[in-house]
Amino acid sequence: MNTENLVARRRKSLGPTYSHFYENPLYLVRGEGVWLYDNDGTKYLDCYNNVPSVGHCHPHVVEQISKQIATLNTHTRYLHHTVVEYAEMLADTLPGDLSVCMFVCTGTEANDLAYRIARAVTGNEGAICTMGAYHGNSTLVSELSPEFERIRPRPDFIVDVDPPDMYRGQFGADDPDYVQKYADLVDDAIDELSEQGHKPAMMIIDSIYDAAGIHTPPPEYQQKVHEKVRAAGGLILCDEVQSGLTRMGDNFWGFMDSGVVPDIVTMGKPIGDGHPLAVAVTTPAIAEAFAKETDYFNTFGGNPVSATAGKAVLEIVTRENLLANVKASGDHMLAGFGKLAEKYPLIGDIRGKGLFLTVELVRDRSSREPARTEAAQVQEAMRENGVLLSLNGQGRNCLKIRPPLVFDTSHADIALAALDDALGRVS
Amino acid sequence: MNTENLVARRRKSLGPTYSHFYENPLYLVRGEGVWLYDNDGTKYLDCYNNVPSVGHCHPHVVEQISKQIATLNTHTRYLHHTVVEYAEMLADTLPGDLSVCMFVCTGTEANDLAYRIARAVTGNEGAICTMGAYHGNSTLVSELSPEFERIRPRPDFIVDVDPPDMYRGQFGADDPDYVQKYADLVDDAIDELSEQGHKPAMMIIDSIYDAAGIHTPPPEYQQKVHEKVRAAGGLILCDEVQSGLTRMGDNFWGFMDSGVVPDIVTMGKPIGDGHPLAVAVTTPAIAEAFAKETDYFNTFGGNPVSATAGKAVLEIVTRENLLANVKASGDHMLAGFGKLAEKYPLIGDIRGKGLFLTVELVRDRSSREPARTEAAQVQEAMRENGVLLSLNGQGRNCLKIRPPLVFDTSHADIALAALDDALGRVS
Repeated sequence: MNTENLVARRRKSLGPTYSHFYENPLYLVRGEGVWLYDNDGTKYLDCYNNVPSVGHCHPHVVEQISKQIATLNTHTRYLHHTVVEYAEMLADTLPGDLSVCMFVCTGTEANDLAYRIARAVTGNEGAICTMGAYHGNSTLVSELSPEFERIRPRPDFIVDVDPPDMYRGQFGADDPDYVQKYADLVDDAIDELSEQGHKPAMMIIDSIYDAAGIHTPPPEYQQKVHEKVRAAGGLILCDEVQSGLTRMGDNFWGFMDSGVVPDIVTMGKPIGDGHPLAVAVTTPAIAEAFAKETDYFNTFGGNPVSATAGKAVLEIVTRENLLANVKASGDHMLAGFGKLAEKYPLIGDIRGKGLFLTVELVRDRSSREPARTEAAQVQEAMRENGVLLSLNGQGRNCLKIRPPLVFDTSHADIALAALDDALGRVS
Repeated sequence: MNTENLVARRRKSLGPTYSHFYENPLYLVRGEGVWLYDNDGTKYLDCYNNVPSVGHCHPHVVEQISKQIATLNTHTRYLHHTVVEYAEMLADTLPGDLSVCMFVCTGTEANDLAYRIARAVTGNEGAICTMGAYHGNSTLVSELSPEFERIRPRPDFIVDVDPPDMYRGQFGADDPDYVQKYADLVDDAIDELSEQGHKPAMMIIDSIYDAAGIHTPPPEYQQKVHEKVRAAGGLILCDEVQSGLTRMGDNFWGFMDSGVVPDIVTMGKPIGDGHPLAVAVTTPAIAEAFAKETDYFNTFGGNPVSATAGKAVLEIVTRENLLANVKASGDHMLAGFGKLAEKYPLIGDIRGKGLFLTVELVRDRSSREPARTEAAQVQEAMRENGVLLSLNGQGRNCLKIRPPLVFDTSHADIALAALDDALGRVS
């Protein structure tokens, strides 16, 4: 099938809500490690995809899933050892009492379940989220995801706060109290809920603010926010779909960088290296309280194949020492971006941690005018140079760099050379 | 790991919401076709599981998934031919304009998305569901699933109607107007919504009423209901997670038995033979209207591996002529149940279609007192006889028989002989 024909057939059979990356979309046919190949055999370095966490088609994941699908795939109404072993392995990566795993298929399902748990346990309805965040696509979770809001008014039990954006936000890094001020927005949110007759059941927190342009506030931010929400009777839900599984380079899960322990942690996308697998992890006390309100069963959640996929991923993360790899290649990328910033005034800011990084492009470093067109040109030039990345930030002027966790310093050198060339062509 | 040890570790790591079948749970380690094997090597005929639709570990599914996970697993922001081919194959099985496929991972996600679509397209909020139905577990869909309601009051935009239960319901099969009377309950539901300030966005309909004890009303029921809901401005959502994919023996999808065409069809569980795959199919006009309200992206939905799994299942359904197989073995089972009913007065009623059948056990055929204890004893005796089935119905006195679609008449004979023995021991 040629690309043009495929685009037309796809528009007809999948409909208008399906969009694709790039004007001239990529038709990918093969993946291996950090490399992707299109239908013409062109090879691309993948600096974007976090779902194939341990690399595209990792042989250990492929072997383990292939064995298990040929052996048994049922559900958790029967016993199976792998789901228990996997849950125990996950619990071992987590601090505090976070040891009860409820398996689902997507980050959406995990966050939706977390809200049901929070509502049942606290007796409250309210939820606090962050402007620009994206947590999934169910009826409830899309309402918790202001990024995609277009027409519908939000229900009155959901309120949002600004993300801690120290580059473009209402409080800048030059304000000595900016952490406190961003945290204090949560007080306003709690007041707003209260005016609408609600108390918070939970606040959903990202350990890295992606859609707003990749911000990682200092530890005090989460510490203060956790305290405020708990004082108001709510639980803390950390959505680690993006920031977890060593992605940030210092700890296994992003919230651990802040030295806090949430009440519920949700994990999705990368934990199955592409297999639909997600989980909400909570404490025994919260799990017991939730069980008093309702049964919960997820047909596919925690089936032997999904559990095998998750277990294989954790085995690789340990065996290949990916936390150290992420730290090393992330630091290498940041150093490289720093050098490019000396050469190209188009670079306004460099942010992120581990392998979740951004280079924000501006027309002028003082006015910080977003270089939206230039960012799109850099994205296209990078594709021509054989490197895939994406854009984010409110002005779509931030290069989003979030490769598989097996991306090493040699891959970083390739990406940096390609970026040097792309910025040279655009500047 | 022995079973006792596994149960204890599972309770700790998965928590109290995870229940299991049987007092003494089954620890399954292998599956093939309609057969399951436990950790002691005991073999069971699977008369319960619908998820492994084309049989446990079907070699074609195993081969196709294994190849694809070793080749590429990305998402729909890139082009791939398999998801388009699969969508076109699905559309070919459906009547009318039902040709736009939106892929998700679970039946929950499909039904939740269907509600979002219905709400966007109609501008209404209300939803009508059926008492005792189960459609999934998200915040919204669990509210549409009265089966699991325990503590929480339902939101005022959701109302329910009684299922068309002609054996125990408010209108019996002896009432010549029972179909009309069950359909007219929808008028009451629309009035109830109206009193609460809502109009219907949709009604969610099962083509077989499982939880209430497996009821299949005559075609006029769905015909009348579709008309009423549409006249009130709502869409019709047929949940084919259970009744679809030839399960009912006469048509590819259950609603086709009623000669109707819904606005949205949701499919889940069996379409991936155990792989987490589900879809909401709608018309081009509805898809366009939804796209005006929002973007929709599902990271795992329609990825090359999931699409491959779905395509492999459809290929098997055609190649192995499963529709005819379901019809033949279903009829064979019904005939066998009829003979057993002559022998055992414990059998009060026999219902269902294709390979979705029930034998309802009663203490007395006139009073229809549910034989709950006896049903549980039969379930245990069947396990001892090497056959797995489940119970449903409000009195948990209905034997639920819903094997993989490859269950043939020779398997039916094994199941019937085992049931003859079990009923003999219990009667």
